Amino acid sequence: MGLDGDDTLWQNETRFQLTQTALRDLLRRHVPDADVDAHLADVEMRNLRIYGYGVKAFTLSMIETAIQLTDRRIPAADLEVILGWGQKMLSAPTELLDGVEAALQDVSRRYELLLITMGDLFDQESKLARSGLAEVFKGVEILSEKNVDAYRSVLRRRHIEPAEFVMVGNSLRSDIAPVIALGARGVHIPYPLTWHHEQVPEDSMPREGWHRLGNIGELGALLDSL
Amino acid sequence: MGLDGDDTLWQNETRFQLTQTALRDLLRRHVPDADVDAHLADVEMRNLRIYGYGVKAFTLSMIETAIQLTDRRIPAADLEVILGWGQKMLSAPTELLDGVEAALQDVSRRYELLLITMGDLFDQESKLARSGLAEVFKGVEILSEKNVDAYRSVLRRRHIEPAEFVMVGNSLRSDIAPVIALGARGVHIPYPLTWHHEQVPEDSMPREGWHRLGNIGELGALLDSL
Repeated sequence: MGLDGDDTLWQNETRFQLTQTALRDLLRRHVPDADVDAHLADVEMRNLRIYGYGVKAFTLSMIETAIQLTDRRIPAADLEVILGWGQKMLSAPTELLDGVEAALQDVSRRYELLLITMGDLFDQESKLARSGLAEVFKGVEILSEKNVDAYRSVLRRRHIEPAEFVMVGNSLRSDIAPVIALGARGVHIPYPLTWHHEQVPEDSMPREGWHRLGNIGELGALLDSL
Repeated sequence: MGLDGDDTLWQNETRFQLTQTALRDLLRRHVPDADVDAHLADVEMRNLRIYGYGVKAFTLSMIETAIQLTDRRIPAADLEVILGWGQKMLSAPTELLDGVEAALQDVSRRYELLLITMGDLFDQESKLARSGLAEVFKGVEILSEKNVDAYRSVLRRRHIEPAEFVMVGNSLRSDIAPVIALGARGVHIPYPLTWHHEQVPEDSMPREGWHRLGNIGELGALLDSL
């Protein structure tokens, strides 16, 4: 069984959104009318192709946004503050979501667990180490993109049949849709905040092959019923 | 057989050093007497624990260095230039070192090749894709740190006995010393430039268990003689 990390096991999007709020406040002092969120989203999407995902990419895109929106007038001291936000995000403790520890202890007695996350290798390994959960996982896969090819090669490399694989995560786009395409099953546990890039319209999802839970505490019972 | 990527198969340190030269020139206009290299090295070492390796980490550390050395007086336009250098490094073509393509075609007919690199997941995958070499590798492992534990877990996961494993790379510290400690063999192919963090005194290396080649073209013959 595969489990996503960010916003499935531990908080992630919250720390991005809090930082983005701080960026908005900082830039409003220089350019009161700027649409910081829209500009940052554009910069992030343009940079995705070269930076990939994660906090370092986000920090670089915040700095680029700050420089561009202020027409290069932002003082270096403010950019230093932004740098500091990135470093704080990267060193913050890993905050597990409610019920995660008990649920994983339970299912790890009956299933082999793989952590399958996306993003920055160094940051993800560091978060796992600080989470206290490393012991329950039989393996860890950190992917630069969670698409059908990436899941296929994980399953092949680990000699796992798609029909016996279940992926658990908060993102329909990254955790559920690609594994259904391979013939595996998905368990969607929504998180209240979702990055715009991860949003897919619900009606574009297949009808079969996936389940939705309100809470990771229900995972053991669902797996037993499959 | 494992092969390192950066400065073993393709140029890497050169692009860092060229960028660092440009940083030195840019900062000398603001602070003629500053020791840019020493300050950047300090910042990089301090940030290694939270950023890890790679171009994004290097870019963030260059920006931090520029802000600190100019006592926050550097204009945002200059920091924008530094951001651009990082983006250029990340999108530059992968330049293979001399003889790499022929050597890998040769040895891949007789051995199973694994690419084992360190650093930024997204950047390394992108470099491999642009290198045209992806086909010769049976697998790819991108590690956040190349130490004994990391190599041990790669070999275990892939069911490879250390005694039958050979690692080829340009770094005594990252490619050779840890595999010798596991009972595998190392083939050192030095590269003229080595990042200060990767340097180890030669006399601290074990006497047995590794070989040195002047050129990757000699790899096939060495392997056949082992």
